[in-house]
Amino acid sequence: MDDAIITFISSYIDLTPDEKSVIQAQNIIKTYPKGTVLLAHGDLAQDCFFILKGCVRRYYIVDGDERTTEFFTENQGITPVSYLTKQPSDYYLSCLEPCVIALGSDERNQLLLEKVPKLARLIAQMSTELLVKSQITSDNFKNMNPENRYLHLLETRPDLVARIPLQHIATFLGMTPVSLSRLRKRITLKR
Amino acid sequence: MDDAIITFISSYIDLTPDEKSVIQAQNIIKTYPKGTVLLAHGDLAQDCFFILKGCVRRYYIVDGDERTTEFFTENQGITPVSYLTKQPSDYYLSCLEPCVIALGSDERNQLLLEKVPKLARLIAQMSTELLVKSQITSDNFKNMNPENRYLHLLETRPDLVARIPLQHIATFLGMTPVSLSRLRKRITLKR
Repeated sequence: MDDAIITFISSYIDLTPDEKSVIQAQNIIKTYPKGTVLLAHGDLAQDCFFILKGCVRRYYIVDGDERTTEFFTENQGITPVSYLTKQPSDYYLSCLEPCVIALGSDERNQLLLEKVPKLARLIAQMSTELLVKSQITSDNFKNMNPENRYLHLLETRPDLVARIPLQHIATFLGMTPVSLSRLRKRITLKR
Repeated sequence: MDDAIITFISSYIDLTPDEKSVIQAQNIIKTYPKGTVLLAHGDLAQDCFFILKGCVRRYYIVDGDERTTEFFTENQGITPVSYLTKQPSDYYLSCLEPCVIALGSDERNQLLLEKVPKLARLIAQMSTELLVKSQITSDNFKNMNPENRYLHLLETRPDLVARIPLQHIATFLGMTPVSLSRLRKRITLKR
């Protein structure tokens, strides 16, 4: 699984064999069973995450109900708000599937950047791309009604619809599971 | 105004006099009258922006109506999606106030990073912070009803409520100007 990280980074920047060893030496890779809560409401996040395999869900509990706001899958990084702010987390992160995850910490990230300074450029580029994607997603949510949000998700991230339980897809789209179920039947009948 | 950029960058990293001159030499700073459209739907974005003074609004036209999805003010950067993707823009960026803006381009940013490599670390840090802020904003929008969104905005960005015309605040919160106006009266009566 170490190689997955090297392959991912190498798709952006060229790494020397030395740099590859530094990165491999710094990596802490863990596997988590399905259902593991990586971060709970009220926790202080100690790590940031990079998903090598599996799917992680971000959700809040609002008036007793779970509200899913994001899904993360292979080759996506997760920097918890709590990791940056050093304040207790407002949300949960949990594994929807068995997961293989590379863990980062301030200390190890600092060391990596000192030894492989060009990683900063990669992080800058990736963060900018992620920021723009996050803004598009957020804008689309505001501009679309639930039906269009679902159709858009089917078009842009069909993998999510295929692998994630419908009740989580529903709250992610801002609708109830019953409404989503009806919408899916209506769409199937139309086709 | 050049000094504002140096001051801003210096609040994150130490710059040598040489590095300051490089940055100042690369800066292209322009002033725009209120109402200037910096980027229109269908345009290819040539620049990214860093606001030194003023306020810029991001909006879409949906079914003939303007839908505001973001406001940017002093010391905020704007990387248009179109700037990254080299595809025509889906949205507009326009100046809500007279603005003073530093412009970046691929070529000049590349040169800056070559001459002041440690800027990459600053960009990485800023982009990560912006990404996290953008996710919080987007999560809050999903988890709150319009009234709570308004109260949250009053609490977290009172400057926006004070300086931006109400019709734009309304669409930004996902409500009509009339509903926002009623909500504001109701809140005033309560206090």
